[in-house]
Amino acid sequence: MTTPASLPVGTKIRYGGDYNPEQWPREVWDADSRAFDLARIETLTLGVFDWAQLQPAEDRYDFTQLDAVVDHVEASGRQYVLATSTGALPPWLARRHPEVNRTDFEGRRHRYGQRHNACPSSPVFQRLSAALAGRIAARYAGRRGLVAWHVGNEYGGACYCDLCAAAFRARLRERYGTLDRLNAAWNATFWSHTFTDWEEVEVPNALTEHWRGPDHTAFQGITLDYLRFTSDAMRQNFRDEKAAIREHDATTPVTTNFMGMYRPLDYHRWADDLDFASWDNYPPGMREHARMALTHDLMRGLKQGAPFWVMEQTPSTTASRDVNPLKRPGVLRLWSWQSVAHGADAVLYFQMRQSRGACEKYHGAVLDHAGRTDTRTFTEVAALGAELEQLGDAVLGARTPARVALLFDWDSWWASEITDGLNRHVKYPQVVMAYHRALWQAGADLDVVAVTADLSRYDVVVAPLLHLVKGDVAERLAAVAARGGTVLTSCLSGRVDEDDNAFLTDVPGPLAPLVGLRVEETDSQPPGVVNRVRLDGLDGVVSEAGLVFELPVTEGAEVLGTYTDDFYAGRPAVTRHRHGDGEAWYVATLLDDAGTAAVVRAVLARHDLLGPYADVEDLECAVRVRDGQRTAFLLNHRTDAVEVPAHANGTDLLTGRRITAGERLRFEATDVVVLREDAADT
Amino acid sequence: MTTPASLPVGTKIRYGGDYNPEQWPREVWDADSRAFDLARIETLTLGVFDWAQLQPAEDRYDFTQLDAVVDHVEASGRQYVLATSTGALPPWLARRHPEVNRTDFEGRRHRYGQRHNACPSSPVFQRLSAALAGRIAARYAGRRGLVAWHVGNEYGGACYCDLCAAAFRARLRERYGTLDRLNAAWNATFWSHTFTDWEEVEVPNALTEHWRGPDHTAFQGITLDYLRFTSDAMRQNFRDEKAAIREHDATTPVTTNFMGMYRPLDYHRWADDLDFASWDNYPPGMREHARMALTHDLMRGLKQGAPFWVMEQTPSTTASRDVNPLKRPGVLRLWSWQSVAHGADAVLYFQMRQSRGACEKYHGAVLDHAGRTDTRTFTEVAALGAELEQLGDAVLGARTPARVALLFDWDSWWASEITDGLNRHVKYPQVVMAYHRALWQAGADLDVVAVTADLSRYDVVVAPLLHLVKGDVAERLAAVAARGGTVLTSCLSGRVDEDDNAFLTDVPGPLAPLVGLRVEETDSQPPGVVNRVRLDGLDGVVSEAGLVFELPVTEGAEVLGTYTDDFYAGRPAVTRHRHGDGEAWYVATLLDDAGTAAVVRAVLARHDLLGPYADVEDLECAVRVRDGQRTAFLLNHRTDAVEVPAHANGTDLLTGRRITAGERLRFEATDVVVLREDAADT
Amino acid sequence: MTTPASLPVGTKIRYGGDYNPEQWPREVWDADSRAFDLARIETLTLGVFDWAQLQPAEDRYDFTQLDAVVDHVEASGRQYVLATSTGALPPWLARRHPEVNRTDFEGRRHRYGQRHNACPSSPVFQRLSAALAGRIAARYAGRRGLVAWHVGNEYGGACYCDLCAAAFRARLRERYGTLDRLNAAWNATFWSHTFTDWEEVEVPNALTEHWRGPDHTAFQGITLDYLRFTSDAMRQNFRDEKAAIREHDATTPVTTNFMGMYRPLDYHRWADDLDFASWDNYPPGMREHARMALTHDLMRGLKQGAPFWVMEQTPSTTASRDVNPLKRPGVLRLWSWQSVAHGADAVLYFQMRQSRGACEKYHGAVLDHAGRTDTRTFTEVAALGAELEQLGDAVLGARTPARVALLFDWDSWWASEITDGLNRHVKYPQVVMAYHRALWQAGADLDVVAVTADLSRYDVVVAPLLHLVKGDVAERLAAVAARGGTVLTSCLSGRVDEDDNAFLTDVPGPLAPLVGLRVEETDSQPPGVVNRVRLDGLDGVVSEAGLVFELPVTEGAEVLGTYTDDFYAGRPAVTRHRHGDGEAWYVATLLDDAGTAAVVRAVLARHDLLGPYADVEDLECAVRVRDGQRTAFLLNHRTDAVEVPAHANGTDLLTGRRITAGERLRFEATDVVVLREDAADT
Repeated sequence: MTTPASLPVGTKIRYGGDYNPEQWPREVWDADSRAFDLARIETLTLGVFDWAQLQPAEDRYDFTQLDAVVDHVEASGRQYVLATSTGALPPWLARRHPEVNRTDFEGRRHRYGQRHNACPSSPVFQRLSAALAGRIAARYAGRRGLVAWHVGNEYGGACYCDLCAAAFRARLRERYGTLDRLNAAWNATFWSHTFTDWEEVEVPNALTEHWRGPDHTAFQGITLDYLRFTSDAMRQNFRDEKAAIREHDATTPVTTNFMGMYRPLDYHRWADDLDFASWDNYPPGMREHARMALTHDLMRGLKQGAPFWVMEQTPSTTASRDVNPLKRPGVLRLWSWQSVAHGADAVLYFQMRQSRGACEKYHGAVLDHAGRTDTRTFTEVAALGAELEQLGDAVLGARTPARVALLFDWDSWWASEITDGLNRHVKYPQVVMAYHRALWQAGADLDVVAVTADLSRYDVVVAPLLHLVKGDVAERLAAVAARGGTVLTSCLSGRVDEDDNAFLTDVPGPLAPLVGLRVEETDSQPPGVVNRVRLDGLDGVVSEAGLVFELPVTEGAEVLGTYTDDFYAGRPAVTRHRHGDGEAWYVATLLDDAGTAAVVRAVLARHDLLGPYADVEDLECAVRVRDGQRTAFLLNHRTDAVEVPAHANGTDLLTGRRITAGERLRFEATDVVVLREDAADT
Repeated sequence: MTTPASLPVGTKIRYGGDYNPEQWPREVWDADSRAFDLARIETLTLGVFDWAQLQPAEDRYDFTQLDAVVDHVEASGRQYVLATSTGALPPWLARRHPEVNRTDFEGRRHRYGQRHNACPSSPVFQRLSAALAGRIAARYAGRRGLVAWHVGNEYGGACYCDLCAAAFRARLRERYGTLDRLNAAWNATFWSHTFTDWEEVEVPNALTEHWRGPDHTAFQGITLDYLRFTSDAMRQNFRDEKAAIREHDATTPVTTNFMGMYRPLDYHRWADDLDFASWDNYPPGMREHARMALTHDLMRGLKQGAPFWVMEQTPSTTASRDVNPLKRPGVLRLWSWQSVAHGADAVLYFQMRQSRGACEKYHGAVLDHAGRTDTRTFTEVAALGAELEQLGDAVLGARTPARVALLFDWDSWWASEITDGLNRHVKYPQVVMAYHRALWQAGADLDVVAVTADLSRYDVVVAPLLHLVKGDVAERLAAVAARGGTVLTSCLSGRVDEDDNAFLTDVPGPLAPLVGLRVEETDSQPPGVVNRVRLDGLDGVVSEAGLVFELPVTEGAEVLGTYTDDFYAGRPAVTRHRHGDGEAWYVATLLDDAGTAAVVRAVLARHDLLGPYADVEDLECAVRVRDGQRTAFLLNHRTDAVEVPAHANGTDLLTGRRITAGERLRFEATDVVVLREDAADT
Repeated sequence: MTTPASLPVGTKIRYGGDYNPEQWPREVWDADSRAFDLARIETLTLGVFDWAQLQPAEDRYDFTQLDAVVDHVEASGRQYVLATSTGALPPWLARRHPEVNRTDFEGRRHRYGQRHNACPSSPVFQRLSAALAGRIAARYAGRRGLVAWHVGNEYGGACYCDLCAAAFRARLRERYGTLDRLNAAWNATFWSHTFTDWEEVEVPNALTEHWRGPDHTAFQGITLDYLRFTSDAMRQNFRDEKAAIREHDATTPVTTNFMGMYRPLDYHRWADDLDFASWDNYPPGMREHARMALTHDLMRGLKQGAPFWVMEQTPSTTASRDVNPLKRPGVLRLWSWQSVAHGADAVLYFQMRQSRGACEKYHGAVLDHAGRTDTRTFTEVAALGAELEQLGDAVLGARTPARVALLFDWDSWWASEITDGLNRHVKYPQVVMAYHRALWQAGADLDVVAVTADLSRYDVVVAPLLHLVKGDVAERLAAVAARGGTVLTSCLSGRVDEDDNAFLTDVPGPLAPLVGLRVEETDSQPPGVVNRVRLDGLDGVVSEAGLVFELPVTEGAEVLGTYTDDFYAGRPAVTRHRHGDGEAWYVATLLDDAGTAAVVRAVLARHDLLGPYADVEDLECAVRVRDGQRTAFLLNHRTDAVEVPAHANGTDLLTGRRITAGERLRFEATDVVVLREDAADT
């Protein structure tokens, strides 16, 4: 078994979740324990929001109850992830040190309330949160049930207080050194913004550079730097707590729970600080299997493909949405196996028992308010527990054999969504998801990686909407093509440098030589306005394009598709450019799914990367490999049954049934097969 | 004539309304008086917004003009309701004592403007408003024209200032006694909210527990307590002024004008403090006859069924809406008679003369800017005045003979609309209105009462969306069924206790034994998603249900309707449970009008409570009874004519015409018949 | 050539635009210069946002770079408009004197950011802005390249700080003299607002009289006075800077760039202070030719019909919109010629070179980031430059021969959109545009003028939605009719006086005698509700009307159209009243385009004012006349070709081609003919 050193050691996919016995009388604990046994739950997350309990006053700590909880959990033979409890401030702290409360985008200092409410720049918060983490580590390090540390919780949001302003200025000094360089980076001459003193810099919010909210700013450079500052400031909070833990515990892995495609934090900049990645999987809808595949891959990509944990998912419903539908029968199982298929070595829930009061009292839980074990939810949870137990360590530590990389870049996300002058209806994740969906449906195993990732292992690199081009990414993309690979990029790429200043060359800037064209003009149209693209180079598929229509002039590229309408009818919309032994494709507009699929499949076909079920919609096949052993997860996300020929010989690990390549496999809706493939030469 | 002691004495339905001669030169007053004579207007409301005039400085009062107005009104033979003028602050007060200005939900201290602008917790406001009320009472008590006192005006809104925070904390101390009980009530352990000092409690607003406005809170318990606090704080303002009046006038009835289904104030908690109920009837649309029937009944229910006053209605248009349509010909008459039919012993207008400037200058009035008496509006007002005069005292003090109670509960309204985790599209009044509409269309005379009301007099009790169950209401509902009555309740009932903590038993909590089932899961779906319910137990009616779909497991209840779609097809949606000599019905989803009607009519039919025109849509029949004499108001809310057989022998009090049971009565659109029914044995 | 003294002297339509070489290294300047030569660009606007550069500290000015720029521009033979650079504050100023930052409508003092960010009432801003203007004037007055001064930039917005409050009170004292008059003007008795000290007056914003934003106010009078105050306060800023310039330069014309129909500023009150009018033409959509005709005419109307400048337009796309489409081929040329057709003697761009960073980096420019001169945009710009050069001085100073006046009134705009009680969906500019579109499509040359304008020169005066009637406009309108002209006005006119108090007479107040009717009631209905109007007096056209339905009672007027539906079917909707030798028309509702056109054409026909191409949709014919010489601009705004008979003999100045009256002229989409008409007797 090849678990990386940084991932908690185990013998099976971990199963369990957030547990808050401190909200309940002791008599409930034993009932819970019996229920957990029924469901094969062996890992609990403890103490996520216990600060007020653990430190009832600045000069007083009280571990009585947490001791009892930990003892109880260990006594029942379970293990635990222990949180540092700093995800929400205690009331006394907010009152005694008002500086710890955040100031919001509107410039309003908040008073006490909610959670995730600490100013990341507050020295008091920094000191006390690290102290608490240290105290907890000192007390519980080395306990036999402890498997990992969980720092804070779902870091996010932003603060705009004077402490943050000061810290922002300090960061700018560090980054730019001189005001001249700052003014150049921000193009400050525009609108008379030349700064003559660092103290003149204000945080970009509704009282300074912004109007109509966080996406409308007069100075993209300032806002972009503040987004980076905020991400880094919270990362430093994490690092401070981790350092405090490390003073008492040198080895237990440390993580924090991320949130997938979450705009405020650049997880790629955080990744090195985590010992392993974990995240909370709350998809925004009920038909989000493709999106979840992407987010799992994004999270896995944080640690060079090492397995990650699903730290939270709901067993039934969410609570925070306007509408909170039930997971349909089988969906919990299907999605849990999907997470394993994409690299999860733990499947945990929020939460074990439904909270009695406050805003999550109707959030789904393994055990409801009445504590029943005969509900559909509990029954499904327990059945999955049994399956995971049966799987054992079969895929623990196994990796995704990806030959395709999809680039994901927070800087491009931020830059493209805070800019004026393009089309406000274009959203970075939607564009990325469109390309991902095409890759995923075609059955390509893929990695989602940062622009700084090593691209040398991939045959295909897809970089949609790479708006901001920084570092040597242009060179490394060119190298992919040069050695025979294929690069695919799209409209609105190559527009600005790391400071969000436009390249003073033809669009797409440093990518122009690679794609063999220059974009002369960019038309924007409102949602609903369609221009068709005829892909004469791709079987004549006709795609409906929208929102953005770039008008390229080819400079070496071959035209594969052209616009059919408007004054640019006949002009190139999709191109391919030979570069070295490989190719660089450019899609100058936002194609519909059919068009995107045609482009993507042509690229994949060049490298023989289409999956075995590429033509069966919503039947997913994801593979994990360990020591050469391939395990294929076949997941039917359809709402109906489907029959397909098996793609390989092997054994279904969930049933023990032998499967022969070519035999008809029938999948009912939500069905899952975990196919341990026979070695290729059998 | 049986007028309760607390209602102003009179000899006919009072007619008149708000009059502000202080805005006009004296020459206008005489012209007004002549017009009022033409329209049989005999009761005027005076001095609603005269604070600045009556007290031009903190140490100076000036009654010169109010004296003149009162003299003038009395000289013309009219009576008046006298207001305490505290509905809007004078500018000097706001400037001299900034504390009297409210701090809004966003945490912003307001400066001077608008009306209903006083902080209810401000000692200065409390002192000066009571002082003014006392001064006015001292001066005008005992005047022959005085018929009632009108305290403040349309109490409402909320304040979030430091004075309110202090008063809130004081209230919490009183309610909970200890911080332990406070923390338990608020489930404070969740998200680290354990309070260790009363001073740590902040008011719940945009700077503390809330996001996305007043309905999204991290701690429902805190917000619920603040809603109660605000309602009570304003109620105390009312009580203070009333007490000041009572020092000078022991007997004249005191009221304030309510606003029907108005969320911010729990009128049930206010009701005891009013001598009689009055309210301002501004329906949100032009086809709101069913809603108005409900709101009239709700207002009548505040005082155990005693008649109430319509203190305001517009004779033609509103001014504050985005679109302000005219009342169509006949509508003013129809709606006025509807209010009488539901228990109004006064029909008053806002306002007598159209204001010259500011935001109500286009609000409809009996007299327009030109003072014309030949307009359609004035003509309709005068014609109605003549009819009311003709009716005389015929129904004064008469009561509604209701055998059906509809429960209305502000706590359930608040709790269900501020919670996360259900479906934000479910609005408490809409659910109540759906059941009311079914009852109303079926022609059942009904009372709308608090959950604390005496239920022993009713055959049927309908309790839609009784989300929060407090006190002994569950026991009293069970008693209704036990003695042979029928109880009907619906989805989302029985979820939380008085602190908004979930019951730790099966849903619907204390109501579960009565309805004979437990709700295992609750599905939510967005607007537009439909699941049909086949009511096999109710003539096979098929109803479209939406938004919320509970999945009950029966524990004794009989299944009358089942879902037809989705994974819960075939599972119970409507049930009936024998309980003692009676029944308890449960509707597990939100049915459409047809489904709700089928359920409601089956319940009414069991007690023979269907009205005579139940099958004629929008032909209302509402009854008032005094000393055994029934008067039926037949009101055609349709936009076309309809013919029906008369349900009883009697005399139309508006025309003097004899009507024989069974004879064909033709109602043109908006027609009204006031049928004094012959004794049943004739 | 008859250029008014106040307009910059020139020999051709000026061509060029905003140029910011300070954002670029010197090597770029020469490349720019060569490109400008290619495009016949001879006039550049310099220094619009250079404050931070020109005055790097309160006690230090630095003209080094501006000197270099000016030298460079002069050396290349070009002229320039020199700005005073006060459109955006430098950072040091905002930090050193926080009072210069605005306080917004929500009552929040802003910190440094964006542009147009100075409080107009700040003594520091007033002093330093005038000082800077004076310094610049002292340095550059008399330079050979200087053609005009450009004060500030796009004045607008509003401030609500304490300095503004004090200035507002001072203005009120000046306007009203006594508090009694103030209270009367504001109808302060309503809602207890009687002011007893000037200091009690607060600025009307979200913390005082407003709710739901700037259009919802409790006191229209206060808000109206604050709108006037704001407009005047910024106008005083302009005057201060102009006065500082005039200390050093007695003759060079001074302007500032206006923004067409821009609600915050009453440009009619500003007009006298400008030596010539200029404006920035950024229509909100791509099919706005009629709207632009109106806005050009409005701007021309500011200076009694004298030619104006288009100070800015984009050569390709905007940047600030959600969606920023390209100008289609030919559109830049078409719209530029349209501006000339309506009186522009300069056609300037924003901007010459695309900015590198910040929020306008994607705004269209003559030169893109790569500096190319082979783009479509540059090519079109250069071609237009050649055409303008060819035209020479042919129409310089020429005037529009209008016999129709369309009244435009900021007071009515403000009053009608901040009032309660009508219909919030009615927007003043939309109503004005509906009448304008009908006039424009009919081909009538027209002036758009203030209600204070001399009306004696017009045959037809159209006054839509003249809500607020002030001064002697009612008398002057009556005089138009009395002498044989035609007046046309519409619903919601004649409602309030200059203080926004309702006239205490029949509606439409002082206009009632002229139109010969009184409006008894006004019905409002939501968008989508239609009542048809049958125009029996106008060929039986049937028009769909919406939103507002006045019910007039004629008092002498002839009925031309009646409602067909609802309870007011058959009542008058369009009337005509003989008055003296002329007529006054009244349209009591908002007709659709067909109905409005029928009314407007009947009026025009009476005076024989229909244009030659009235029946060819979107083929515009606009005329300029100088010394009796008519030049007709024929502009095809259609998206297809059209053929028409020429209306006159003459010469196309763009091609030199002779055209004979009656010959078929074919216009491709966007085609333009500039027809110098032969004298009428040839």
